[in-house]
Amino acid sequence: MSSKPISVLITGANRGLGLEMVKQMVETQGPLSVLFACCRDPDGPRAEGLRALAKKHPDIIKIIRLDAADPNSIKQAAQQVASVVGKSGLNIIINNGAMACLSTVLESTPEEMNKCFSTNTVGPLVIIQEFISLLRAAAKNSGTPGMSFRKAAVINITAILGSITVAKETFTKSLPHRVSKAALNMMLVCASVELQKDDIFCMLLHPGWVRTDMGGPQGEIDVHESVEGMLKLMNSLTEKQNGALLNWKGETVPW
Amino acid sequence: MSSKPISVLITGANRGLGLEMVKQMVETQGPLSVLFACCRDPDGPRAEGLRALAKKHPDIIKIIRLDAADPNSIKQAAQQVASVVGKSGLNIIINNGAMACLSTVLESTPEEMNKCFSTNTVGPLVIIQEFISLLRAAAKNSGTPGMSFRKAAVINITAILGSITVAKETFTKSLPHRVSKAALNMMLVCASVELQKDDIFCMLLHPGWVRTDMGGPQGEIDVHESVEGMLKLMNSLTEKQNGALLNWKGETVPW
Ligand SMILES: NC(=O)c1ccc[n+]([C@@H]2O[C@H](COP(=O)([O-])OP(=O)(O)OC[C@H]3O[C@@H](n4cnc5c(N)ncnc54)[C@H](OP(=O)(O)O)[C@@H]3O)[C@@H](O)[C@H]2O)c1
Ligand SMILES: NC(=O)c1ccc[n+]([C@@H]2O[C@H](COP(=O)([O-])OP(=O)(O)OC[C@H]3O[C@@H](n4cnc5c(N)ncnc54)[C@H](OP(=O)(O)O)[C@@H]3O)[C@@H](O)[C@H]2O)c1
Repeated sequence: MSSKPISVLITGANRGLGLEMVKQMVETQGPLSVLFACCRDPDGPRAEGLRALAKKHPDIIKIIRLDAADPNSIKQAAQQVASVVGKSGLNIIINNGAMACLSTVLESTPEEMNKCFSTNTVGPLVIIQEFISLLRAAAKNSGTPGMSFRKAAVINITAILGSITVAKETFTKSLPHRVSKAALNMMLVCASVELQKDDIFCMLLHPGWVRTDMGGPQGEIDVHESVEGMLKLMNSLTEKQNGALLNWKGETVPW
Repeated sequence: MSSKPISVLITGANRGLGLEMVKQMVETQGPLSVLFACCRDPDGPRAEGLRALAKKHPDIIKIIRLDAADPNSIKQAAQQVASVVGKSGLNIIINNGAMACLSTVLESTPEEMNKCFSTNTVGPLVIIQEFISLLRAAAKNSGTPGMSFRKAAVINITAILGSITVAKETFTKSLPHRVSKAALNMMLVCASVELQKDDIFCMLLHPGWVRTDMGGPQGEIDVHESVEGMLKLMNSLTEKQNGALLNWKGETVPW
């Protein structure tokens, strides 16, 4: 592990995989200068666990309001982060917050389609746009050539449901969710090409089928195993994986 | 060519590939009972060529208003079509109308993202939903088992820009367009699975880089060559190609 402290931002950090990511980041991925744990309702009941964790690490964890479906809240979050990190910039964004929707093709309403798209696709795009100067600053300040996870990176949690190849074999439902994640995959791959000249690394991770509110109790693994796998993977990333879609075990998921 | 007359609907039928598709359908794909040529502004200057063509084939071509970005206009179009075809249903939908947008990742606004998504992804979904009973009726009435183009089919014109595999190698711009077409690909593949039990065939076609308003004067082929290739291909489709993405020459395009 490099000894230079890094700054990290995680969205959807108040429960499920996001909360576990905050926990393991602080406990195993040090040194961290600051970890911005973003959620939609920092003071509400769904952020209780996150507030308790932040109390244990008051020098590192900063809770910030960010609603991926609201571009204005993203802009405000970026301003708050900028005021903390200043010229050092922000090293890592882990875009984890997302919503699901179980409708079939014939059931899905335009409202469901648009809501998933705004939250799961447009939100992550606006996050890249609003944080780009902070990511560029971090890349410049690193003093090392090329791309790496701890230098400047956007990691987007996607889902195997967003794989068209997989949908062709197994589709039954969750159309708005699948469509928004396939769209997210395209967006992030394009970002991986466009931001390469700035040495900003972009990639997509499928966390596995995980026992969370979204994954349900039948999930195959727990949040600990999923996040442990993903963090191990993130630390081993090389330029070759820029624009890749891997699962928590490091296996390639087809588009 | 089968001798049973079929009914066809084409969107974006007033110019470019859509207009050429109407022309070649009427001239080479008979017998047709009716061809619904849909466009956003049937009485406007952009539909002049279509109105002239309809005048030449008044018994076959019916011009209908349909704006893919407006679910209400799709519902109304379906009601108009139903009142013409009655219990025979509708055999073929060719979803061709779409919009482009040239912005890069850092330039694309939420408005551009949403507009392309509504037009290019949600529109084709709502079209399937609103026309499903007419497609089912056509499938039932055909009297033949399995799936085929002339029995009941939804053909969506997509774009190689919507291929994530291709974007990874060649991305420079058109993010909202690319994202909406990747999303369309996912939607139509899911539809191909869900509607299989109704014997409704669904597939995606890339028309090539064509000299139209959208493709520009540098395009590699003209509308005649593109549409001729696509119609030849459509007529040769078998169940194996349900859910496939092919180009106008019949070659598979990767997701
Ligand atoms: N669990 C699985 O099996 C599985 C499988 C594949 C992919 N994933 C992906 O993994 C990620 C995390 O999922 P999870 O299983 O931890 O789900 P989860 O337990 O349901 O948590 C979802 C998180 O996303 C947040 N979120 C929802 N809408 C948001 C918005 N508009 N803006 C910002 N945050 C928002 C939620 O915040 P609130 O508390 O405010 O709602 C919550 O923190 C998602 O991207 C999901 O698609 C999960
Ligand atoms: N040309 C190429 O090189 C190329 C390459 C790949 C894919 N494609 C695809 O081929 C299809 C046809 O493109 P084209 O080259 O013929 O483009 P075009 O000449 O620009 O024509 C676009 C057509 O789509 C219609 N349209 C736009 N927005 C619509 C909406 N909201 N509802 C319904 N119709 C709408 C337009 O109608 P208005 O006249 O009312 O605007 C027009 O009829 C599109 O799906 C496009 O993505 C083309």
